[in-house]
Amino acid sequence: MAEIAVMGLGTVGTGVVKIISDNAGIISKKLGEPLQVRTILVRRFRDGPYRHLCTDDFSKIENDPAIRVVVETIGGVDAAYEYTRRCLEAGKHVVTANKQLIAERGCELLELARKKNIKYLFEASVGGGIPILHPMLECLAANRIDEVYGILNGTTNYILTRMVRTGAFFSDALREAQRRGYAEADPTADVDGIDAGRKICVLGDLAFGHQIDPESVPMEGISKLSLRDVKIANRAGYRIKLLGRALRLGPENGFESGSRTAYVAPHLIPESMPIANVEDVFNAIVVRGNAVGEVMFYGRGAGEMPTASACVSDVMECLSSWGEAPLWSPDVSGFENPLKLRCRHYFRIEGSLTDAAMAFGQVEVLSEDGETAFLTEPVTGLDAKKRAEKLNVLSCLRVLS
Amino acid sequence: MAEIAVMGLGTVGTGVVKIISDNAGIISKKLGEPLQVRTILVRRFRDGPYRHLCTDDFSKIENDPAIRVVVETIGGVDAAYEYTRRCLEAGKHVVTANKQLIAERGCELLELARKKNIKYLFEASVGGGIPILHPMLECLAANRIDEVYGILNGTTNYILTRMVRTGAFFSDALREAQRRGYAEADPTADVDGIDAGRKICVLGDLAFGHQIDPESVPMEGISKLSLRDVKIANRAGYRIKLLGRALRLGPENGFESGSRTAYVAPHLIPESMPIANVEDVFNAIVVRGNAVGEVMFYGRGAGEMPTASACVSDVMECLSSWGEAPLWSPDVSGFENPLKLRCRHYFRIEGSLTDAAMAFGQVEVLSEDGETAFLTEPVTGLDAKKRAEKLNVLSCLRVLS
Repeated sequence: MAEIAVMGLGTVGTGVVKIISDNAGIISKKLGEPLQVRTILVRRFRDGPYRHLCTDDFSKIENDPAIRVVVETIGGVDAAYEYTRRCLEAGKHVVTANKQLIAERGCELLELARKKNIKYLFEASVGGGIPILHPMLECLAANRIDEVYGILNGTTNYILTRMVRTGAFFSDALREAQRRGYAEADPTADVDGIDAGRKICVLGDLAFGHQIDPESVPMEGISKLSLRDVKIANRAGYRIKLLGRALRLGPENGFESGSRTAYVAPHLIPESMPIANVEDVFNAIVVRGNAVGEVMFYGRGAGEMPTASACVSDVMECLSSWGEAPLWSPDVSGFENPLKLRCRHYFRIEGSLTDAAMAFGQVEVLSEDGETAFLTEPVTGLDAKKRAEKLNVLSCLRVLS
Repeated sequence: MAEIAVMGLGTVGTGVVKIISDNAGIISKKLGEPLQVRTILVRRFRDGPYRHLCTDDFSKIENDPAIRVVVETIGGVDAAYEYTRRCLEAGKHVVTANKQLIAERGCELLELARKKNIKYLFEASVGGGIPILHPMLECLAANRIDEVYGILNGTTNYILTRMVRTGAFFSDALREAQRRGYAEADPTADVDGIDAGRKICVLGDLAFGHQIDPESVPMEGISKLSLRDVKIANRAGYRIKLLGRALRLGPENGFESGSRTAYVAPHLIPESMPIANVEDVFNAIVVRGNAVGEVMFYGRGAGEMPTASACVSDVMECLSSWGEAPLWSPDVSGFENPLKLRCRHYFRIEGSLTDAAMAFGQVEVLSEDGETAFLTEPVTGLDAKKRAEKLNVLSCLRVLS
């Protein structure tokens, strides 16, 4: 009998308890012993099927030698950090879906776990139930990872999908997402790209083996995105998606060897690329390795059962011999400003084609009807900004290629 | 220093040696020691950069205690089986991309590896470089896997893509695939669904934990597929793809609990499903778990470097502590005839709509121009066959839903 604790009984925590009960037979067969939830840490007691397991006293978990793994689904940094640290100190494996904690304090907590010779696993922190961290680290181990990018936030992807399909304005699509429970009452972390930003930090940390400081990652969301751009892009054979991207940089693109960057921003994506067709609340993450090329991982990036699926699988990994805890260096040097990256840019301006050509030379015209929308040749973000200084810019987006 | 041997120096074997050389720094950093190819088994000596490592004497590998891992890229069953068995007997880990050997003798070889407490890994046998076997077994460990299906053969997917995009006939598209090196001179194993069949056996073995006998898996390819059907399906919002499918069966669909089935056949897929948009030589595999829902893995399913990427990553897993060898039971009982599965069917017949309605009751008409094409309500394959007995059937395909 393997016994665990769950800290926090929100959406993911409840899912964890449910899966352990629903799939008890399968889990026990794979583990070689039954898995059972022994204690659940809550802030407030509520009636329900798990009432008898609940406590509001963390020391009941910290000091219980029977508890071998603790699932942290508290969220945020303060209490989650404190309890995680103490669980690890007490020699208990910890599993989490908490991307904020991993992005901000993961390096330190992983080092503590390594010292204690236990595991701190967080597959659920990126892409919900989609396997991405383990496959990237293990199945692609022979590769130099050159880039990771993806649709990392289901709420914003749902909103963008509504805008494309039904021509809804951002504000209306957001309200619909809230009505359906896909967006929270305060949607800031989602629509401003903060959630995606934390996830791209975790992906970048692991892909490149260096801490990426979330503070240095520019995060742009979709709240300023205009329906006009969505329509022009669509007609020209592109889809607009909010992407998190982390890239290895080197002499081949004019940077120091070993440097890297990361950012979150809406992009135009050619509709022929599979990631352009990832719709609704689905997520997809693309990893580019120097041997394997591009591989993509797709599925439900959030939700009770998918996210809990990843947590419970991580619990099983803690209890068996498979898997090895990932690690990265706390050294943040070598992080470059993503505005130094070169790519095609989409502009919509109040002005004429002549204005566009004056600023950018040759451009590909997408629309001239009322306003002017065009694609530039590949330029750096800094250069694009500078050239556009004298233009009356209505929108500016990167093009993924 | 970790030393390995490579058996066979064809496409994949050459890729393995190349990656170990190209990515030496990365691999050594992750492993904690350098990785080096010590011996290469070949049938005929050829000049080249690896000439000094080559031998045609298997005992040089079998009896060399310095060799810790052997990569088998011989292919087929006879010599590959014999040498793999002897390497495992000699206590050496073995890594392979050989789907035929895994599908036919994997169960026995894995049992031998388990007894010897070493690893026999084969991530590269399905989906080339796409991580699929490890993620399914480890990251989705908390799930009951209910279904695995996918585009498992790049050659046939390339041919189908050409037929859709350019309206090419099957024979012309095949010739183009051969010209580009995507299809072999004898394309039988690809176009007749045999290659996909071996892969779906491996996926099914692992998903359900029971040996699937390749002999009992109906394999239908694309050689009889008509351009007419491709066009009708396309116009109606479907794509035709060759799918391998393995399904868990149970009382909920009228079968004994714990039974399963598998087959390979072309399917109509609604264009809104991401797998419908997997084009050219790309592969994609969908896994449906009872907690995670559907997740999809996408990338290059073949080729020198992608397949070698998976092999070398498996080698690294053998040499480190991560990962656990998969296992399944040799018991094949509970395998059901896939014709008992219920789904919508696409028919094209020489005859009228009245004939169609007489046989199938209500149908959805897709075309009446010259011939009659329609979709049935969900029926079993056996039932569809029986009802269509009196019709003059030009084509019959399953619809994925």
